[in-house]
Amino acid sequence: MPNVASALRGSFVACCSIVVGLGLAGAAPPPAPSPQQIVEQAPATAWRDVPAGDLVVMTLPGGRIVALQLAAGFAPVHAANIRAFVRAGWFDGGAIVRVQDNYVVQWAVKDGDRPPPAGVVATPPAEYDTNATTPPFRPLGYRDAYAGQTGHVAGWPVASDGKARWLTHCYGMVGVGRDNPPDTGNGQELYAVIGHAPRHLDRNIALVGRVLGGIEPMAALPRGGEALGFYGKPEERTEIVSARIAADLPAAGRPAWQVLDTDGPVFAAWVKARANRGDGFFIRAAGALDICNAMPPVRARP
Amino acid sequence: MPNVASALRGSFVACCSIVVGLGLAGAAPPPAPSPQQIVEQAPATAWRDVPAGDLVVMTLPGGRIVALQLAAGFAPVHAANIRAFVRAGWFDGGAIVRVQDNYVVQWAVKDGDRPPPAGVVATPPAEYDTNATTPPFRPLGYRDAYAGQTGHVAGWPVASDGKARWLTHCYGMVGVGRDNPPDTGNGQELYAVIGHAPRHLDRNIALVGRVLGGIEPMAALPRGGEALGFYGKPEERTEIVSARIAADLPAAGRPAWQVLDTDGPVFAAWVKARANRGDGFFIRAAGALDICNAMPPVRARP
Repeated sequence: MPNVASALRGSFVACCSIVVGLGLAGAAPPPAPSPQQIVEQAPATAWRDVPAGDLVVMTLPGGRIVALQLAAGFAPVHAANIRAFVRAGWFDGGAIVRVQDNYVVQWAVKDGDRPPPAGVVATPPAEYDTNATTPPFRPLGYRDAYAGQTGHVAGWPVASDGKARWLTHCYGMVGVGRDNPPDTGNGQELYAVIGHAPRHLDRNIALVGRVLGGIEPMAALPRGGEALGFYGKPEERTEIVSARIAADLPAAGRPAWQVLDTDGPVFAAWVKARANRGDGFFIRAAGALDICNAMPPVRARP
Repeated sequence: MPNVASALRGSFVACCSIVVGLGLAGAAPPPAPSPQQIVEQAPATAWRDVPAGDLVVMTLPGGRIVALQLAAGFAPVHAANIRAFVRAGWFDGGAIVRVQDNYVVQWAVKDGDRPPPAGVVATPPAEYDTNATTPPFRPLGYRDAYAGQTGHVAGWPVASDGKARWLTHCYGMVGVGRDNPPDTGNGQELYAVIGHAPRHLDRNIALVGRVLGGIEPMAALPRGGEALGFYGKPEERTEIVSARIAADLPAAGRPAWQVLDTDGPVFAAWVKARANRGDGFFIRAAGALDICNAMPPVRARP
């Protein structure tokens, strides 16, 4: 996690030891732990393992790894389709076909015009929201432009109108490309958000996961020159060398990821600290946090 | 402007002519103009020229141009400092020194340890917000996590608590790097937001402008490997070939930009269309818009 609290300190200022902050005079109390410190000091019990069957390991040229968690609880049919495409090898030799600035990076299987492999549901249901009431919804507690309520469900950023709940289009969230309705996309073309959250897409597309690691090289790819950021020439695309489900890899050495337990006290402390930053850099704590600035911390399993 | 309404249609679906949308049966009324169409059809009178004295033209290697508008009405001392650094040639030979994923790209003058050039205020006031009541504040009309109210002031995205008003940290907004308070930065190191809006920085840093054009290659630079995304090696940096104030360039052929008049009816229609998307792609219009998804459209002056 970046040390956001000090992230904009100029590198050009010689002295970095001034600690004034918050208008306190005289002996200041010891500073509260920063969000980063809270995460670093979290006990092992504060972390939840990502199931190996929900972890897609995508390899790009140069050995760069993109680790993607499937939101099987929110979009089970789309998640199952993606597993089936991965296991049939359809993403091997696929490519990143589109990068639109402040919006999305998008990738697709190789030769997508073939009849889908066994196990793929050709026309999945519209898994755009759910009326499920479990696992529990933990309210974030701050206003949201788009929904009556936002919060977290089992490690995921979620909005709710009090009846339905749905995943939110935050940075790094992964959705299923589709054409006009009633098509919902079958999972052979996916995108990840790489800009300010396009929340107007919420409940309009099946969000199906989140990039846990390796989004940086994808977000840093050249933007495509065609309409909507598609690349005009095949040679502009970045090849997907392979995609595998972690559970299918040898247990020894396979990638394993963890998400901070969003039902636990460490996450609650992290949210509170992010909403109320108080180190020497900040003049005025926001006293608030929007759902896409509250993406649950993740880490490679130590 | 990207055609966001159709932005996630899969390129892999053969048929793109299905128009169902919104559950209408029988003869559908003609579709309302999209946000992009509203901008494309705006009359010349709907656009406001960016003053040439507020336009910084930064040239990167390969002739890539970054056009930056100074928010002189919000941070006049910092804006004047930046003009002075530019006119003294301090940014020529400077560099992009930091790229942090989902956060900021940051650049600095060359040899920043020198005594500042004439006209630079060494310790500017904290231009983090203002009690000004003109130009008028046009409310956006939707909830915001961080402020009681958001809207626009003369082409800028703004939040307000009913007393003060301040610029918001949206994608492409430019701020002044600083160390701990009371330092506010003198303008020789700047950053632009390239990720989800870090709104907790609002009222903590002097926002001083906006990238109008050319942010894509900056946002696509490799992320820095050091703490906070700084580049560890000088050769990783991108040089700033030159920076000029547009007013200082020959009038013929110099860059000129326009921002859609945020006080006018075209902008109001654009906001309404973005909050209520209704083409064949959307199942459910958001009925809302957050301030950082309402960045006023800009264009090179035709």
